[in-house]
Amino acid sequence: MALRRGPNPRPVSVWARRAEAVEQAGKYLPGCRVSTDLAAIVGDCSIAVLCLPPKSIVSLGPELAKLLPPDAAATDAGSVKRSIVEGLEPILGGRFVGAHPMAGSERNGIAAASADLYDGAVCILTPTPASNPAALESVRSLWRETGCRLVEMAAADHDRAVARISHLPHAAAASLVHAALSADASVAKLAAGGFRDSTRIASSAPAMWSEILLDNAAEVSAGIADLQTRLGELKLALESGNRPAVEAFLSGARELRAKPQPEP
Amino acid sequence: MALRRGPNPRPVSVWARRAEAVEQAGKYLPGCRVSTDLAAIVGDCSIAVLCLPPKSIVSLGPELAKLLPPDAAATDAGSVKRSIVEGLEPILGGRFVGAHPMAGSERNGIAAASADLYDGAVCILTPTPASNPAALESVRSLWRETGCRLVEMAAADHDRAVARISHLPHAAAASLVHAALSADASVAKLAAGGFRDSTRIASSAPAMWSEILLDNAAEVSAGIADLQTRLGELKLALESGNRPAVEAFLSGARELRAKPQPEP
Repeated sequence: MALRRGPNPRPVSVWARRAEAVEQAGKYLPGCRVSTDLAAIVGDCSIAVLCLPPKSIVSLGPELAKLLPPDAAATDAGSVKRSIVEGLEPILGGRFVGAHPMAGSERNGIAAASADLYDGAVCILTPTPASNPAALESVRSLWRETGCRLVEMAAADHDRAVARISHLPHAAAASLVHAALSADASVAKLAAGGFRDSTRIASSAPAMWSEILLDNAAEVSAGIADLQTRLGELKLALESGNRPAVEAFLSGARELRAKPQPEP
Repeated sequence: MALRRGPNPRPVSVWARRAEAVEQAGKYLPGCRVSTDLAAIVGDCSIAVLCLPPKSIVSLGPELAKLLPPDAAATDAGSVKRSIVEGLEPILGGRFVGAHPMAGSERNGIAAASADLYDGAVCILTPTPASNPAALESVRSLWRETGCRLVEMAAADHDRAVARISHLPHAAAASLVHAALSADASVAKLAAGGFRDSTRIASSAPAMWSEILLDNAAEVSAGIADLQTRLGELKLALESGNRPAVEAFLSGARELRAKPQPEP
């Protein structure tokens, strides 16, 4: 939908595994070719964008390698990168360049689609020394056209950074829902914006997110350990009635969050 | 501002400690009396609403007891209730009925004021057996006029419930900012809506929130311990590659969060 906006819409063809999904996609993308037949969709494309759960992205590799035109590029939208790049590069070669657009919501499925989701969002590209320069340019152009700002880094660096800024918040939100509501779920009726916003992503799709967290388990686990430690610091300060320590903890978080970051 | 909306605005007078605050309040409330002189504001009022940090609410008690007309009621907007009710009821008597409107944002000060902040929000009232029936009615009417839906419970029950649904999310958000950004603050440039929303309340005023968390330290501390335990469960499931356990954890949180709550 983002690529179809504006005066020069890019030709887009959509493949999906389920017939209903294909039918729905057709409604959101009038004038575009849609099919459950992979060969019919990728046989003449210039760039394939794999938008599937991480493991499905990798397992599509062998079939895609057979069907993609030799000069076509490929990229993906997976939330983990090392396993995908290490899985697909040997199969597709340097024409595959991993990508992770940092945008989304707790909703999923085509009905949650929005043409402006990517506007101003960061898209992380993870080229390798084996990346084909023409494919990399093609992948960069595509993600820029969606409205994303590009950042490039190694796949392992992506996984480490994203563990902290995206995967850990998902782990924290789900844990917070359990801790807040397990003892007495009726307190939910008192919830205001603070609880709603801080747990919004706990409503994300469990199947996809368990796959993402498990794929990046070592990094996420290290993040969780740090979060437990930080909570312990605050708990100790509260229990000992140490107001300067509590206030320093809260001020430190507020300042860290407000710190301006260089534009990528 | 909420009480001044509509065809029958309630007369409102504003007292504040600082002259600038009084001046600012006058701009937001045209036609209302504003002053730094407490006697001039509360001397002829029918209900006093104490909107200050918890300790200041209690310490204002003795002066207020001298200045309030004998038939005037009093209420407050503090985020903790037991310490305030136990502090003020002996001084003001049954005309004081504690209240906690569950609405706000990470912003503070008069510039963050909004006439519709309370629309549809829950306001918890904590009357006691000593509460004066006429004062209770007067307090109920006032908070209903702001747009709030009322829930009544004992102050200790309020503190226990709100520890989970409001104070714990604040503790979690600040801890998450530290855990996400301390090792490498530059990952903040990759943040999307998930991180922003789940840490929004980490930008709340540190002085006021350290006072609130410390006032309710035992309950908040118990909540933090539960959160640490839940994070540990997820961490273990991730480290052992137990996909059913990870998915059950995420699904459980999603369902708990979605569970419809009876309208208070």
